Parts: sequence; C-alpha cells; structure tokens
Amino acid sequence: MGEWRGERRARDARIAAGRAHADGKVVPAGAVVDLLESILRPGDRVCLEGDNQKQADCLARGLSACDPDKIHDLHMVQSGIVLPEHLDVFETGIAKRLDYSYSGPQGARIAKMLYGGQIELGAVHTYLELFARYFVDLTPNVALIAGVSADRNGNLYTGPNTEDTPTVVEATAFKNGVVVAQVNEIVDTVPRVDIPGDRVDFVVEADTPFYVEPLFTRDPAAMTETQILIAMMAIKGIYAEYGIRRLNHGIGFGTAAIELLLPTYGEKLGLKGKIATHWALNPHPTLIPAIESGWVKQVHCFGSEVGMDRYIRERPDIFFTGADGSLRSNRAFCQTAGLYACDMFIGATLQIDLMGHSSTVTQSRVAGFGGAPNMGSDPHGRRHPSDAWMKAGREGQIVGDPALMRGRKLVVQLVETFGDKLVPTFVEKLDALELAKKIGLELAPVMIYADDVTHIVTEEGIANLLLCRDADEREQAIRGVAGYTEVGRGRDRAKVEALRARGVIRRPEDLGIEPLDADRALLAAKSIKDLVHWSGGLYEPPARFRNW
Amino acid sequence: MGEWRGERRARDARIAAGRAHADGKVVPAGAVVDLLESILRPGDRVCLEGDNQKQADCLARGLSACDPDKIHDLHMVQSGIVLPEHLDVFETGIAKRLDYSYSGPQGARIAKMLYGGQIELGAVHTYLELFARYFVDLTPNVALIAGVSADRNGNLYTGPNTEDTPTVVEATAFKNGVVVAQVNEIVDTVPRVDIPGDRVDFVVEADTPFYVEPLFTRDPAAMTETQILIAMMAIKGIYAEYGIRRLNHGIGFGTAAIELLLPTYGEKLGLKGKIATHWALNPHPTLIPAIESGWVKQVHCFGSEVGMDRYIRERPDIFFTGADGSLRSNRAFCQTAGLYACDMFIGATLQIDLMGHSSTVTQSRVAGFGGAPNMGSDPHGRRHPSDAWMKAGREGQIVGDPALMRGRKLVVQLVETFGDKLVPTFVEKLDALELAKKIGLELAPVMIYADDVTHIVTEEGIANLLLCRDADEREQAIRGVAGYTEVGRGRDRAKVEALRARGVIRRPEDLGIEPLDADRALLAAKSIKDLVHWSGGLYEPPARFRNW
Repeated sequence: MGEWRGERRARDARIAAGRAHADGKVVPAGAVVDLLESILRPGDRVCLEGDNQKQADCLARGLSACDPDKIHDLHMVQSGIVLPEHLDVFETGIAKRLDYSYSGPQGARIAKMLYGGQIELGAVHTYLELFARYFVDLTPNVALIAGVSADRNGNLYTGPNTEDTPTVVEATAFKNGVVVAQVNEIVDTVPRVDIPGDRVDFVVEADTPFYVEPLFTRDPAAMTETQILIAMMAIKGIYAEYGIRRLNHGIGFGTAAIELLLPTYGEKLGLKGKIATHWALNPHPTLIPAIESGWVKQVHCFGSEVGMDRYIRERPDIFFTGADGSLRSNRAFCQTAGLYACDMFIGATLQIDLMGHSSTVTQSRVAGFGGAPNMGSDPHGRRHPSDAWMKAGREGQIVGDPALMRGRKLVVQLVETFGDKLVPTFVEKLDALELAKKIGLELAPVMIYADDVTHIVTEEGIANLLLCRDADEREQAIRGVAGYTEVGRGRDRAKVEALRARGVIRRPEDLGIEPLDADRALLAAKSIKDLVHWSGGLYEPPARFRNW
Repeated sequence: MGEWRGERRARDARIAAGRAHADGKVVPAGAVVDLLESILRPGDRVCLEGDNQKQADCLARGLSACDPDKIHDLHMVQSGIVLPEHLDVFETGIAKRLDYSYSGPQGARIAKMLYGGQIELGAVHTYLELFARYFVDLTPNVALIAGVSADRNGNLYTGPNTEDTPTVVEATAFKNGVVVAQVNEIVDTVPRVDIPGDRVDFVVEADTPFYVEPLFTRDPAAMTETQILIAMMAIKGIYAEYGIRRLNHGIGFGTAAIELLLPTYGEKLGLKGKIATHWALNPHPTLIPAIESGWVKQVHCFGSEVGMDRYIRERPDIFFTGADGSLRSNRAFCQTAGLYACDMFIGATLQIDLMGHSSTVTQSRVAGFGGAPNMGSDPHGRRHPSDAWMKAGREGQIVGDPALMRGRKLVVQLVETFGDKLVPTFVEKLDALELAKKIGLELAPVMIYADDVTHIVTEEGIANLLLCRDADEREQAIRGVAGYTEVGRGRDRAKVEALRARGVIRRPEDLGIEPLDADRALLAAKSIKDLVHWSGGLYEPPARFRNW
C-alpha cells in the first residue's frame, strides 16, 4: 500500500506555484521564464510543442532562457526538433534526453550533438508511435503548446493547425501533468473550442504569433520532364491498374507532379472518379486543380499549409472544417487514416539498396522520418478488403492456402535514378547503416524496410516487387530500373529482360507511354500563379513563392 | 467547377429541421423519433454509438421506431453491434449496409442475417481501422452518441466511459455531419468537458441511463489450476525472459490469472518492477492486487469497467483521470498505444491451425475481433527499440544483414488444448474459412495471422515460433504443445524432441516449474470478495458477481 496521490498533489503544487505569475490562468509574455521555472522540476518529461508545421516558439524561447541551475536534465518528448532553441536547451544542460520524430532543419546539428554526447537519444519515432508512447511510458509532466487564441478560462482555438495539440494535451492533462498554451491573443470567446479549457492550466499571450512553416508547397515551375514521365508511369501503371481511390502522397516533387497531372493526363485516360478520390494529405496547393476539376471527394489533413486557409474555408465539402469555417486538422487521426484506411502510400526517398530498403538519412544528418514508416508499412491488423488491396495481395502471395488470402498495402517509392547533385539513389549499402554505427544507434534509421515496399518507379520504368519470387529476382528488378547508376549498370541483362517479359519490370513503352510526351504542357498548373488562378484567387501563397 | 457548400448547406437544413423538436439544443426523450426523422436522410451513413461497453440505447430505440418509409437504406458504421435494436433496423429496412468491429451477444444473429441477405456487409474491422475509415471513406453523416451529462450548450461529460465518443464526434462534426448526444441528465455545468459543445448539435435527455456492460470482470473463483499452470509458464518463460514492461492483456481467464499471480508467483521470482509496469488495458478488477502491491506504474484504458469507478478515483497516480476525478478512457489512443507502444500482446483464441493462424469465429457466429488483430500484429512502422522487442527480433531474424536487424512485437496466444465443452483448440482448418465460404466473405475472418504470432502457450508447454526455421518446424512446434488433441497426437515425436532440445518447445519442467505447484493458493485473490478486500472496499462489483 502506498501513496496514491503523489503525482496529483505534485501537479497541484506546480499549478499553485505558477499562479503566482498569472492573473487567473493568463500569464504575460514577460513572465514566461518565471512561470516555467515555477512549474518545471529537474528530470521532467516535457513536450515542447514542435509539430511538423506549428511551433510553440515563445515557450521555446522561454524554456531556453531558464536558469539551468534550477531547471535541468529535462527529457524532451516532442514531434519536431525544428527551432534552434529546441537544441540550445541541450547545450546549456536544461535538457538531457530526447525522444522525437522529425527534424528537417536541425538534422545536421542533432547528428553532431549526438556524436558529441550532448544529447542522450531515446529514439527517432514516427509521429503515431511517439503519440502512442505518450500514453504508456513517455507521458509528459508538462506540455508547452501553441494555439491561435484562448479565452480566460483556457478554452483554446488552434485554427487550421490543430495538428498534434489534442493528443499532447490529452496525454498530459489526464495524467497529472501541467498544460501551458501560448496564444496569439486572448479573446472573450474563441471561434471554436479545439481544446476545452479544463485541460489547460496556463495561457501565455505570446509576444509574436506562433511560427508556422509552409512545408508542403511545391512550385510547379520547378517540375522537370523526368518527374512528369515518372508521374505518368505511376498514374497509368499503378493508380489505374490497382484502382487506387484512398491514398496518401509524400511531400516530394514527384507526387506533386501526379497531383497536377490528374486533371490532364488522368482525364485523358478516363480515370476521373476511379482513382484518387479520398485522401489523407496536408492541403497541398498542387492539389487545387484536381479539386477544382471535381476529382477529389474528400481530404483529411495532418496539419494545414500556409496560404491555404481562405481556399479551404470556401471548400467545406472537401476538407474537414469547424463551425468557424477553418480547417480542423489532426495528426493522430490522419496518421491512423494513412495507416489503416489508405490503399497506397507513395513517396520519395534518398537511397534504396539492393533489397529495397530505403532511407532519407545521410551520413551527417539525423532528420527523422515523420510519418513515412507508419504510412509506408503494410498493417497486418487491417481486416477490410478493397479491390486495390486484394489485387496487391494476390500478386504478393506466393504460397499457402488461397482461402487464407489477404490483401497488401501498396507502398510505392517514386525516385529519379540520380538525385540532387547527381548523387545516385540506388546504392549497395545505405548510409543509414554507417551513421548508426558511428553514433551508436541500436536500430539503423531505415525509413521503409524492403518487405513493405511493393513498387519502385524511376524514369526507366516500374519494378513490381510483389511479383518477385526470390531475393535474386528482387535484386535484379531493382537493378533493372536503376538506370545508369552503378547498381543499374550491375544488372544481369538476361534476367532483367526475363523479368520484363513477365511484367515484373515495365518500361514506358510497355505501358504505352511515349517519353517525349512527358512535357510540362501536361501540368495543370505550371507555376504558383497558375495555382492561384485555379483557386479563383483564394490561395494566398507565402511571399517567398510569389515571383510575379 | 461546382457547388462547394452542398454538404454544409444540407447539414444546416437538417439542423434547422431538428430544431423544431428541440428547446435550443435540448430534446425531450419523447421527441427522439421526431428528431431523428427530421435530421436523417435515406442512405445516410450513421454511427449509432455502440462501443465495446457504452451503448446509446435510447437513441437506438428511437432509430428502430422510425418510419421505414421515411428513413431507410441507412449505412450503419459503428464499433459494436450489441443491442437487439442494432439489428432490428436491418429487418425493417431502416438500415441496409453494415460496417462494424465487434459483436459479442449478436454474433449468431448477424451470421444468420448475413446468410439470409438481410444485411449487406461492408467489412468486420478492428476498432482503430474503423476509426481510420471515419476520416476517409466511411465518414458519418449523423452520429448518435452517449454521455453521462450535458449542459444546455451541448458541452458533454462522458464520465469514465469516454471510449469511442471523441473520435466519432470529430469525424462527424468537422465533416458537415450532425451530432446527437443522449445523456442521463442535463446540468448547469458539466464536471468536465469531454466533448466541447460546439461539436454537439442536439442533446437528448434519455429516459434511462445509458446501458453499459461489465465485459472485463473475471471471477477468480472460476480459475482452474490448468489456467494457473499456463499463467506460471507465461510469467517465467516469456514475461521474465524478455523483460516485458509495456503490454496489453486480452480478456480471458488466462491473462486474468497472470494478473493475480504477479504479487505472489511473480514476487517470488523477484520480478517486481522488472515486468508488467506499463499497461494499455481496461481497468480489470483482477489487476487490483498487482496495483496495490506496487507492481503497476500506469494504465491507459480503452473504456472503463462497471464497479471500478471509485477505485480508479482513489488511484490517480495509476490511471488517466480528469479534473473531476473520474477515469478518462479513449479507445483510439489506447488502441494506438497497444499497437505502437507495447512490446507484447497476449490473449486467448478459440482455434489455432497448423501454421498458427487463429480465430474466435465459429461456423455459426460472426462476432468480430474488436482490437485483437490490431494489437496482435507486428507494426512494421515501429522505430523505437526496447530490450524485449530487440530480443524477439534477434530470435526471429533468420537471414540478412545484422546491421539491418530490427525488433519484433511479441504476440502470444494463451490457450488450453481443449476449450469449453472439450472442443479441441488446435485444428487442421479454421472454421472461419468454412464460414467465409458459406456467407460469401471476400476475406476469411482470421483474428491473428500466423506470421504475427510469436508464442503459443498451453498446459503442455511454450512453443516459441520465432525460433522455427521453416514451415515444418513450425507445424511440429505447434503440434508439440497441442496435447491430446488430434493435432497434438499427430506430432512427429523425434522432431518434437529435437525442437525441445533446441528450446523451441519448453515443458514446465524445462522452465523449472512443477505442475503440482499450480495451485489456487497462488492466486492473490480467490474470489470477487477478495478483490473488494484488496481494494479497501473501493471496488464495487455489479450484483451478478456478488455471491456473499
């Protein structure tokens, strides 16, 4: 028998201490450091909200300004390591241990700090996996989150970037944790309640609106004919063949090109209504022409995208929106949708090895994978059939009782044989393995394991790995689309031709695609400006994408 | 270019029509049929909240009393088919199509109605999978949900049985759907806000409190020495060997016996603090002794359990609770926790075949699997290591580059070789396959596929399928623990002995367990009354479990 309210009492004491710096729940921006020093304890698990897009930057600055003699050895458990302050706290000793998911801009600095022993790394998770652990063994003691506005009772309006907030708050508030929200303004009544006030202990009126990054805007002007050719092959050879209606797209130019080809090339193939109707996707500006052309039935979003707010407000039949009119995104549910309710995940990667393992990790960066390993995996717990899923299952089932046939998720890698700066995409060995050894990771940072990948598409053709019957066939199928890379040149020509004869490898001509037709004229929008036109002026691109 | 607000306008029109039967948002119980007939449209997708435990029964009665000339051909999308009314609506034509997850009590009637063509079946999902589809292609037009109380603005208090409600409401309210909540009472201020009022369109004051079933109470008095022996083997041979800290238990007597052996047998083995510390689990009464003995660090719950409310309120350091003091459960997050944050799923099944496929479906029942296929699968998207997971991965990795080593989830089947009425658990062919053929299911209702199962434990021993190197070894390992069933008697004795020599099969004596020690005296509680004592009188078992 023990003390059963120790955690609860400690929470109450923290809140009482914090109240000294607050007027009710409201804390002025200038008192953030005092507030944090009064509610945090050394060794706390802290979620400093860093999402894929939205950042609790005012609270991040406050945390990094705390006195390391008072606040130290924190265990940071957060999706994104995005701002410099997210790592500064490890240099000063305020934080010690890190569990996270994604780190675009800070990937190189993390790698250095891991190597230098400045960060004690737990693991690099997928988003959904980290959220899962919030409820089991990484429950935050304190959550520092961000919203658009709040009332004085703490009712919180996140606006279109709801993202991770409900998940973080639920895990923290219901397990004796303290929740602090920074908001752009305090209002009398919030436009809608994204987080009920009884889960929020303190509201900080931030000095500046929270930082949010346009991560999912791809300028059509930068799309190449090679990307268009690859996109055509994907549409005709995969989307159409499997009848993919429910899907998730990665963030690269390849999938953005697919989005822009639906109303043109897809229309010509008579595919409208037959493919790409239901999406788990951020509001990609490049999806606007497909939406406006009536291709898209609905889209559920992980987060929002800068500039898309007005457009989304005017398209409530397509997007999930609140009574206030703005997008309601939710990363946990959208990741779940991507895992269990989509028939295909298609995205890019930086390296693919001879078995089909892939990674975006290079020797000097630990960027994390965000959601790709989750959505790019075949969920064995799925129990609902669909035509696309069952067809992939039949192709992949080599042995066993046909009565026990089940489906397969399509996991497609869309890559050019040579990437940026002509670095080959296909390699004998992933850099990720070298990095893991160097910085002592127990688990190599593989993005998608070979056994989950079903297709690889390059400008040379499509390799259908489902149809490979052994490791040698698989290797030759990969070499067979690896072009002039060393891996591609190492192919056994006879074997590759045999695979092509069986349809395991398909060239553009096998699909009835003339590479010379892969012209930028096929893009429904050729520039950001075109996207604005398509949207009827509702899409408002950030300044850096405006060049007219 | 089209109409972009059709769905939104239709929703507004439905709400306006419903308001005729309401005072603000509040609708008297007597007006439920009028309300439903005014807000529903033929062909609607409807989630009539039927959770694993909580039932929106007042609304179910109302729906089944609607006029089929007005309301017909509904597509029901709900977790549980539990109440007779859930199926009555298919007989009257009010409903036509069904997508669901679980149906304990109605499994036989569903099978008959499917066979008779009265129900057009979409699929039998896991919970998380159905939730995922709510955001993609099964978004409800109308959600009929249940809570404990609401204020006049619709702010909803679910009490301990939050369960599926936040997920259902989020998918419906933010995609132009209408949300109707039945509550036990209308109050001035709810004890806590589980669902913000701006997501709830109508509140019905129900004629009786919503129905909730104690599904997870296992009476220790009914536990047999065979179950105790199996539990001892599981603890010593699996929990201790792999160091399982984060786990989910199924609902059978076998896992309940394990819960009751932790403070006795587990204590003797010196395992306290080393195993079973973090749980994704309903508040099983049989977990009380382990909690009281300090074994359990924290528990996140899918739902609640009748009689456990006061106990949970007094143990806020263990359970997730709200500011009001009562449990905050959440099925979506707990299923996610079970999938990605637990190292082991252990549960029972009715049939296992020679490969290790298992099912609880029999020839005359389509009960659904609830969460088992989700939690009992190895999630390929997991990227965080743990000792347990890595050890299982090493055991299971037969070929390939050791640098690419990854872990494996432990998926354990705990069964007696003969089940109820001495029906053999081990079979040549699952009844599920026969049923699928008979009623024309595209996908056989397999609970857990063979490739996800890692261990089978029976009274004869533990078969570690991770260590099997081919299909023949696997079959012999399964036969080797199948006892005197036909499958067990069909074993190749020499091969089974060879597997035992390698540790693939382990008998009680190989584990240092004397079967005669498997005595009821080892149970920390031998009756429901003992559980009440352990709880200091806080656990209040339902009448049917009180026999003193």
